[in-house]
Amino acid sequence: MPASEKIYVTSAHAADVKVPIREITLTSPDEPKLRVYDTSGPYTDPDYKVDLEAGLPRRRVEWVKERGGVESYDGRIIKPEDNGNVSGSHLAQAFPIAHQPLRGVGDAPITQYEFARAGIITKEMIYVAERENLGRREVLDRAASALADGESFGTSLPEHITPEFVRDEIARGRAIIPSNINHAELEPMIIGRNFLVKINANIGNSAVSSSVAEEVEKLVWAIRWGADTIMDLSTGRNIHNTRDWIIRNAPVPVGTVPIYQALEKVGGDPVKLDWEVYKDTLIEQCEQGVDYFTIHAGVRLPYVPLTANRMTGIVSRGGSIMAKWCLAHHKESFLYERFDEICDLMRRYDVSFSLGDGLRPGSIYDANDRAQFAELETLGELTQIAWQKGCQVMIEGPGHVPMHKIKINMDKQLKECGEAPFYTLGPLTTDIAPGYDHITSGIGAAMIGWFGCAMLCYVTPKEHLGLPDKNDVKTGVITYKIAAHAADLAKGHPAAQLRDDALSKARFDFRWEDQFNIGLDPTTAREFHDETLPKDAHKVAHFCSMCGPKFCSMKITQDVRDYAASLNDPQMDLAKAESGMAEMSEKFMAMGGEVYVAEDAVKESNKALS
Amino acid sequence: MPASEKIYVTSAHAADVKVPIREITLTSPDEPKLRVYDTSGPYTDPDYKVDLEAGLPRRRVEWVKERGGVESYDGRIIKPEDNGNVSGSHLAQAFPIAHQPLRGVGDAPITQYEFARAGIITKEMIYVAERENLGRREVLDRAASALADGESFGTSLPEHITPEFVRDEIARGRAIIPSNINHAELEPMIIGRNFLVKINANIGNSAVSSSVAEEVEKLVWAIRWGADTIMDLSTGRNIHNTRDWIIRNAPVPVGTVPIYQALEKVGGDPVKLDWEVYKDTLIEQCEQGVDYFTIHAGVRLPYVPLTANRMTGIVSRGGSIMAKWCLAHHKESFLYERFDEICDLMRRYDVSFSLGDGLRPGSIYDANDRAQFAELETLGELTQIAWQKGCQVMIEGPGHVPMHKIKINMDKQLKECGEAPFYTLGPLTTDIAPGYDHITSGIGAAMIGWFGCAMLCYVTPKEHLGLPDKNDVKTGVITYKIAAHAADLAKGHPAAQLRDDALSKARFDFRWEDQFNIGLDPTTAREFHDETLPKDAHKVAHFCSMCGPKFCSMKITQDVRDYAASLNDPQMDLAKAESGMAEMSEKFMAMGGEVYVAEDAVKESNKALS
Repeated sequence: MPASEKIYVTSAHAADVKVPIREITLTSPDEPKLRVYDTSGPYTDPDYKVDLEAGLPRRRVEWVKERGGVESYDGRIIKPEDNGNVSGSHLAQAFPIAHQPLRGVGDAPITQYEFARAGIITKEMIYVAERENLGRREVLDRAASALADGESFGTSLPEHITPEFVRDEIARGRAIIPSNINHAELEPMIIGRNFLVKINANIGNSAVSSSVAEEVEKLVWAIRWGADTIMDLSTGRNIHNTRDWIIRNAPVPVGTVPIYQALEKVGGDPVKLDWEVYKDTLIEQCEQGVDYFTIHAGVRLPYVPLTANRMTGIVSRGGSIMAKWCLAHHKESFLYERFDEICDLMRRYDVSFSLGDGLRPGSIYDANDRAQFAELETLGELTQIAWQKGCQVMIEGPGHVPMHKIKINMDKQLKECGEAPFYTLGPLTTDIAPGYDHITSGIGAAMIGWFGCAMLCYVTPKEHLGLPDKNDVKTGVITYKIAAHAADLAKGHPAAQLRDDALSKARFDFRWEDQFNIGLDPTTAREFHDETLPKDAHKVAHFCSMCGPKFCSMKITQDVRDYAASLNDPQMDLAKAESGMAEMSEKFMAMGGEVYVAEDAVKESNKALS
Repeated sequence: MPASEKIYVTSAHAADVKVPIREITLTSPDEPKLRVYDTSGPYTDPDYKVDLEAGLPRRRVEWVKERGGVESYDGRIIKPEDNGNVSGSHLAQAFPIAHQPLRGVGDAPITQYEFARAGIITKEMIYVAERENLGRREVLDRAASALADGESFGTSLPEHITPEFVRDEIARGRAIIPSNINHAELEPMIIGRNFLVKINANIGNSAVSSSVAEEVEKLVWAIRWGADTIMDLSTGRNIHNTRDWIIRNAPVPVGTVPIYQALEKVGGDPVKLDWEVYKDTLIEQCEQGVDYFTIHAGVRLPYVPLTANRMTGIVSRGGSIMAKWCLAHHKESFLYERFDEICDLMRRYDVSFSLGDGLRPGSIYDANDRAQFAELETLGELTQIAWQKGCQVMIEGPGHVPMHKIKINMDKQLKECGEAPFYTLGPLTTDIAPGYDHITSGIGAAMIGWFGCAMLCYVTPKEHLGLPDKNDVKTGVITYKIAAHAADLAKGHPAAQLRDDALSKARFDFRWEDQFNIGLDPTTAREFHDETLPKDAHKVAHFCSMCGPKFCSMKITQDVRDYAASLNDPQMDLAKAESGMAEMSEKFMAMGGEVYVAEDAVKESNKALS
């Protein structure tokens, strides 16, 4: 990223907790550097030599081991069906290094939830506290004005995040740090409504197209633009090997939907699924280091017929797999019936639950129907069980919801699920724009983020049409960074507006380079500017292509400002202004009626264009 | 547009009122044709021979003349300064035909507002009533379900729009039909919160770039994708001639900011502006047929210093021109002082007011400040004067507003301005994404549209960076169609969801062609789909690239549906379902546990891919 430096801030609470932050240097010597949250991992560190075959540094191994309660063991043997029974040239290369997995032993705390409940602050908690702050205190002290005037709908965003605050939020189940003890490459992050709103990017190959290399490239690309977590939704062949490459090279939490791989293991027929193959898949993925599992345990047998009269039935892949299984066997879902066992297993690796919304609406018509809400109520019941078992939990949400039905989703989720973090896909606010569903859903995502949703799963322009390529991933991530940030602003996050203000100030000062560099996508901003005004001189021009060099509204504003500053009372109200200005009319004209003085270089560049 | 036919519906109320509608034919014989609002004008009529040099048919001349109260006269002579004093090769060609202008005489009703107040229903009112309905009654009768479950915040959207309803809304000042009596090419449309939410696209050359031909092309392009009105914001040279070409070829209302041209006439120096040059410009544009004028009469002298402590001062071009004038002369704005005269002039041509928000915020930091709201209160005062003078009025709004401050803008506007239609630019909900401000603002636009905003002025990806090209215009228009439609849905517009439902049903039925064609941008949707699955056979494939041919969630849903249909009670609730399903388990398995039967062609195409 241009004009940016990756720095590491060492926490005052732990010397081995070094948190990456991107610091943007502005062109004006009067402007402080701007610190922004950095999801991009070591890839953007010039001192780090990228080696995909080695994977990222495994710094978290020590953190996990030093607090005890875990053991190394020989993991499950990789089986041919883990990669879809392919061989020879069809088999994707295995990741070159096999790390011995860790698992929890006994009743000692293993998960972040258990540590938090026990009053213990982990390194991960210290890390995310530092990360959320971004050196905020110093900046807030400088920006004397009250920035946080949002409507937070009952959240309580503190001005400064402490490790103790993080611990307390996790202990209350209001936040999670998805962090499998086997994902040692992780730079921890937190998901909860009293923190920055996060975004997820889905990647993964499918039966129809894409390769391992492409998926790792998409991962690195997605986090470069700001994805906080990624989900590997691979289907088809080579699922195990693809995921290994992704996790070993992922500094962000990786989520999966284990039923996808389980389905491949039984030849793609949902009817053949059973607890054994599912459990085996969970263990496989726990050992690899997946940080959160989408588990559609709320798709219960009696809810399935509730979807029969829907416009678009069941659109969740996992949901429809389980619906089919329930119907075919005429049994209650094994995910629901075995939920205790699933918790016990996931706890040993601290894999977080992302309780899936298998009955989410697939169209505006189906939004907020009984099937959807029946499942949500069950997810609330399962949340309590998962907490009793010591697991971290978040809840997935829709989907397709018109604007006026969004808030009820958030309110009901908070109520039913004891304030566990909500993680929604969009929602799309209309169905009439295939090719633009990043926008139809960006609207809904911003709104539900404002209302309290903790993480927003991106939607790309290809949604409903095809698999996203690199450009689509970028567009999806940027759109969702916008939604998440708009939500942070509206909630009144104490530091969110600093970046808006820095950009607005750069805009007002005609610092074009700074405008580009502070923005979410400097490359595109610069390209757009250069289409009309390509010369280097234009980067310091005190005008833009909208009004041209002869007239500029911002230029006039400077006159107003200088004039007002020349008045006696800077805190003018309407009445004072009227009298004050009457007195000062003469003074203004004496000043020549024109007080804006461009620097010589700027004048010169403007002249060349007029 | 693919699979589309332009039809003309004759109003039952007037035989010479024929309203264009686009009718989309779906591939399934069971699905009725879908009628959608059509802004594209005669250009999409295969029977119409496009001739830009002749301009569009002037059908409204008769409507205006037959109701009387107007006279033809020799208009103002075009002066060199109207085109920036350019000559020779620099002078853009004049439009070939000079139509003699009309103007109102005496006290007889001239404006739609005056007719409405007098209880008279005009052809324009009949036209827009038919246009808003889109054959809605028939469709609503068919779609038995209650579609309109929105939250309308006090609007009252009737199930069927009658000409009398239109008249009443206009008489109450709650809606306008921008329709200069000299814009005979116009296909009338209505702006008001009890109607479909509308969008505006800005075009216009600037001092830096673009030509007359490009601007006319942008006009035709913008309305093709759904722009309801366009604003010609040309600056620099050739303003008069550019505008003539645009209006003579525009089937949609054309708005302008007359002060832009007035400024050019005085050499670009705001200090040299006066009432005479402004009035002369208004007459020039009234005679040409401009339908609405942005007039920044609320930028009063005492408000100017209120902007001094802003982050980004005054960002409205018109606002800053007037601020500079007020400061330099130390006088109250001549627009404010001459407002009566402006009304009298605009009334004679039925040019609608778009009262400009010259002090709108230019950054998140400045949103909802005293300067902005002081001006809004003055706009309320001016609205009352304009109505007393018989004029139609709408009110412009911001700008840059974080989500939590949007609703207060709408509520205050309704209160201060007597429910006159609100017309906002976005608002942008964050400032951190230059290059993506169609999205930052699309979020705000959707929300304020839901809250009651009647028209949304688009923002393109080039906002703050450069002049939009054709692609940007399209992206801006589509984004704002999404916002407007999402707002219609959320308000509970009785017919809005018909299009969503048609698309969702096509999606569920795997009618790919219909999915593309019902959407806002069939071209892009098709291109995206074809990137992954290019063959013709894929257009009827019962799968997509996300899940591939072996597994499809929608396919399973069909199983569920067939199964549920086989149960005794189609209106199952949870309890019934549980018992009903227990009984039917055997039956399902007897059916082979697989009830989805693809047609032979589909099976064949799927086979080729698996």
